[in-house]
Amino acid sequence: MRNEHMIDHLVVIGVGLIGGSVARALRRAGHVGRVTGVGRQRANLDRARELGIIDDWTHDVGVAVRDADMVLVAVPMGAYEAVFRAMAPSLADDVPVTDAGSTKQYAMREAARWLPHAGRFIPAHPIAGTEQSGAEASFAELFEDRWCILTPAADADAQALASVQAMWAATGSRVICMDAASHDDLLAAVSHLPHLAAFALVNAVRKSGKGDPFRFAAGGFRDFTRIASSSPQMWRDIVLSNRDAVLDKLDALQQELSAMKQAIAAGDGEAIAQAFQQAKSARDRWLQEHGGKL
Amino acid sequence: MRNEHMIDHLVVIGVGLIGGSVARALRRAGHVGRVTGVGRQRANLDRARELGIIDDWTHDVGVAVRDADMVLVAVPMGAYEAVFRAMAPSLADDVPVTDAGSTKQYAMREAARWLPHAGRFIPAHPIAGTEQSGAEASFAELFEDRWCILTPAADADAQALASVQAMWAATGSRVICMDAASHDDLLAAVSHLPHLAAFALVNAVRKSGKGDPFRFAAGGFRDFTRIASSSPQMWRDIVLSNRDAVLDKLDALQQELSAMKQAIAAGDGEAIAQAFQQAKSARDRWLQEHGGKL
Repeated sequence: MRNEHMIDHLVVIGVGLIGGSVARALRRAGHVGRVTGVGRQRANLDRARELGIIDDWTHDVGVAVRDADMVLVAVPMGAYEAVFRAMAPSLADDVPVTDAGSTKQYAMREAARWLPHAGRFIPAHPIAGTEQSGAEASFAELFEDRWCILTPAADADAQALASVQAMWAATGSRVICMDAASHDDLLAAVSHLPHLAAFALVNAVRKSGKGDPFRFAAGGFRDFTRIASSSPQMWRDIVLSNRDAVLDKLDALQQELSAMKQAIAAGDGEAIAQAFQQAKSARDRWLQEHGGKL
Repeated sequence: MRNEHMIDHLVVIGVGLIGGSVARALRRAGHVGRVTGVGRQRANLDRARELGIIDDWTHDVGVAVRDADMVLVAVPMGAYEAVFRAMAPSLADDVPVTDAGSTKQYAMREAARWLPHAGRFIPAHPIAGTEQSGAEASFAELFEDRWCILTPAADADAQALASVQAMWAATGSRVICMDAASHDDLLAAVSHLPHLAAFALVNAVRKSGKGDPFRFAAGGFRDFTRIASSSPQMWRDIVLSNRDAVLDKLDALQQELSAMKQAIAAGDGEAIAQAFQQAKSARDRWLQEHGGKL
């Protein structure tokens, strides 16, 4: 029996780690026929075709989407405007569009601004990734048992939603829906803020000019700063596209740090131990709630 | 040929992860004869004897050190004053004393204040540990290929220094010396500040009250906050015993966060990307300098 959500022609705009891995996963699942890649770097696109990730490619977004059955936007947030503008004139009426960006209210604003049928844009955020990038780094298992959060608008097209949901499920993701504002707030806390803190921490240590801090760092500093090796451009786009939530979380972190600073300056051991204990209890509880799953 | 630095009778005050692991490592190396444990919890001391970590034990610091050839203080920083006071009256003239605490100027101040021969106190900080505690968690390999930083005073007793250096080397540590102020500043940056930031980050997220942040945290938050599961009491003691350096690093972190906040609020993508890039470059460079050693 033919899968009713099978995608005859998928257009992947941005054939990097995420776009490439979606294509690979869908091929493996028999969920896709032809895959067209769109990108700027010829070497990456050629490599993606060699690896069998895509069947053909073009640099031209408008040409690519003309006979698409599904469009996946897997570019940095900073390129959304250009991509949506370029695809708008040639996108057929009934084609679902999804994305893989880290912030969702921004994605929806750009879609509403440029696409002829914003209700067929079903925003998605697969919570998966590695520190690698490019088609070469992609692999079919990237999404297995990872969350993929969809944030459809209240008036989203039901058929588009069903198709996009089926596509992400076929990658192996656990698909759930929530509203975009909740998504952006939650991710600001658990992802964007830790990245900002890691970048800030490395810069603070770097400027103290004390040689190589890794030499005597027993795990803590290395683990803590691992995410500071992430892509500066990607993270610039993410924090700018989720500005309000990110500023809100930065404020909250600074308040906590200020309270600790005061307690340390005052030698208030009780307040310090209490703050540490509350953090430890919360983390241990969250960890426990996941049982063996972490 | 007998090892000239062989310790006939080692007294370990605090038979936990560190104290227990030193005793095990020295036994394995044939570097110690009898080991006496000192502690408050009978169950832990009995268990340490059962496991062959110590030969005998007492609750009384003064009694224990009376015929020691070497004393290792492996208690939380908050207990240093009580331990030094208790050992001072019965410590023989020529007995070297070392410790394993995380901050060294404080340890030296307490030693100078209470011990009759502070020049025989050779402060040590083995950069090793796990998130476990207690004698049960100790193991002979804990210090292998880990740094152990000694911070002897300018007028330290040469013989005591040689004995302590030999002892830590016999645990498998790579022993190096630096001045205590440099040590405390360096560790404030690479260890104490990351712990404070992790505790603060968890508290900021906890108070935002958004349910279980681990559910959608893809590695970053988990890695970043791992050290927030450390002992609140131990870390309270550490930050209080290194107050000036810790406050200094907290200021530096807050300045970085404030600068980022301003750039984000202003939508200054160039400044944001530059700050992220500088952090990434520094971290990548440090990592590279360690070659395959990480």
